[in-house]
Amino acid sequence: MKKIINDPSQVVAEMVDGLVRSYPDIVELIPETEAVVRADSDTMEGKVGLISGGGSGHEPAHAGFVGKGMLSAAVCGQVFTSPTPDQIYEAIKAADHGKGVFMVVKNYSGDVMNFDMAKDLAEMDDIRVKSIVVDDDIAVENSLYTQGRRGVAGTILMHKILGAAADQGASLDEIAALAQAVLPHIKTIGVALNAATVPEVGKPGFELKEDEIEYGVGIHSEPGYRTEKIKPSNELCQELLGKLDSELHLSEDKSYAVLVNGMGATPLMEQYIFSHDLLNQLEEKGIKPDFMRVGNYMTSIDMAGLSLTILELADEAWLDYLRYPVKTIAWNN
Amino acid sequence: MKKIINDPSQVVAEMVDGLVRSYPDIVELIPETEAVVRADSDTMEGKVGLISGGGSGHEPAHAGFVGKGMLSAAVCGQVFTSPTPDQIYEAIKAADHGKGVFMVVKNYSGDVMNFDMAKDLAEMDDIRVKSIVVDDDIAVENSLYTQGRRGVAGTILMHKILGAAADQGASLDEIAALAQAVLPHIKTIGVALNAATVPEVGKPGFELKEDEIEYGVGIHSEPGYRTEKIKPSNELCQELLGKLDSELHLSEDKSYAVLVNGMGATPLMEQYIFSHDLLNQLEEKGIKPDFMRVGNYMTSIDMAGLSLTILELADEAWLDYLRYPVKTIAWNN
Repeated sequence: MKKIINDPSQVVAEMVDGLVRSYPDIVELIPETEAVVRADSDTMEGKVGLISGGGSGHEPAHAGFVGKGMLSAAVCGQVFTSPTPDQIYEAIKAADHGKGVFMVVKNYSGDVMNFDMAKDLAEMDDIRVKSIVVDDDIAVENSLYTQGRRGVAGTILMHKILGAAADQGASLDEIAALAQAVLPHIKTIGVALNAATVPEVGKPGFELKEDEIEYGVGIHSEPGYRTEKIKPSNELCQELLGKLDSELHLSEDKSYAVLVNGMGATPLMEQYIFSHDLLNQLEEKGIKPDFMRVGNYMTSIDMAGLSLTILELADEAWLDYLRYPVKTIAWNN
Repeated sequence: MKKIINDPSQVVAEMVDGLVRSYPDIVELIPETEAVVRADSDTMEGKVGLISGGGSGHEPAHAGFVGKGMLSAAVCGQVFTSPTPDQIYEAIKAADHGKGVFMVVKNYSGDVMNFDMAKDLAEMDDIRVKSIVVDDDIAVENSLYTQGRRGVAGTILMHKILGAAADQGASLDEIAALAQAVLPHIKTIGVALNAATVPEVGKPGFELKEDEIEYGVGIHSEPGYRTEKIKPSNELCQELLGKLDSELHLSEDKSYAVLVNGMGATPLMEQYIFSHDLLNQLEEKGIKPDFMRVGNYMTSIDMAGLSLTILELADEAWLDYLRYPVKTIAWNN
């Protein structure tokens, strides 16, 4: 393992410290936690708080999406490990400004359980809390750590939409309804060229041969659905887009947002070539996305590969929310 | 070589196509070139055009920095290969709105020669052109493709400062004077954990053992100044910061901007851990940067490693320029 780290047991503490001190105008540490909160929390009076989090190793998710117009706070668990309920509870308290807190949780058993426990703690303090569990990954039905489908890169689009609504003054119930409306329309699938190496483990989560890829790998090196020899980008795209099409029934009469997401070690060069193939294949279906982002949004440490997320914009207000200006480290307007 | 590409000879054409079609509100292709120009060029009347470019493989540089408040156009050469004079000439014409064009060139012999030839072509059309050659890399004095020092990640800070000045209406002569004033205050040095693989070559530019790193490697896998066993992040930081200190004579009485730049395959986790060490070591010197960015700005395809750039803010106006809002793909406000 060759990594720019110090003590493997300190990676999360040092990473979060580096992040908040590099961007003190955007985020600050919640004292005695590894959770971050907006530096401009004083402007949040009368607004619903929006929080997310999970295991670390997915940077810039989720701390990079904390800021005006997006998340109020994010909890950084140990690498690929759910944050503890007490840390989540601190984030809820920091995000609450009298109107309640909404939690965006990725569908992993540990996350779901711990966010739920934190919600119970907060409700004992009379803080209203609601949540959504994002399960956008269509690759497999159940997985290591998961009942049902996994939550992956589509979660970032959920942050963006709900964050805009919260900033515009939506109530907790309105945000909960919006989240439920958006959820079935976000679908994601990925492909891996190699696995991530967790610093405390010191070797990759699985091995692929020099000419092999795996479709449907999760963001914690969970198994996918097929291993095969690497193919040209346009054939990889055909496979991923085909899977999404069979879920979303893509149509030229509908409007879409697209996220091409790098897994951490995949150069933008490859992400843009894949996007070129994707836009060609969508064009053949008569589809031109109304909104698109390409880059590293939900990574898996140093995994090479990418995921493709398509969100059907069933309500045109969602496009306005996606375009709504934010002030965060990692979401670029 | 395991990459998400199609034909290795088409990577630049397909990448640029993917980029402009993913962000049509920000950039567009200059017809019959692999150069991109601002999609809002019609708002540039009366302003100096600012262009940059070079070999591809450094994404998001430079096309990702085209947009209001930063570059007017960028020329994308073949991978690690200078763009041709005719492509640069097209970019100059696209960026000119009657007030002349300023070119930001990284110090590589091919780039310097070809940008100069393009300038001559443009001047025959009565377009005034001036330029700066950025040579911020302090690692080595001469190198594989370079007379003098190489131009690397500090070039992005030059784009940012000049782009803000141009957007505020500075004249060509004022921009040239500003570039000359900033240049000696930008210094960069990097460390590599492995080399980049150029798609048409198919293997890494050099080999490092599983426990080795190389200090001072350039952004095209040019040799650095020392190979040794990997060390903890805080010791790597000490080495890089020490080298920069001996050039910049860091002082608590001065103001600084810092860029921690990932080389393409290095996770943000490692970049933030390095930033944590850096901020601690600067604090020991009584220094707290006034401006900081951490992320992949000037990459070397799939190289692992990072570079550290420090800019001494000798004039406080430079800080305002760095903070000036922009609308680009890759620079986040």
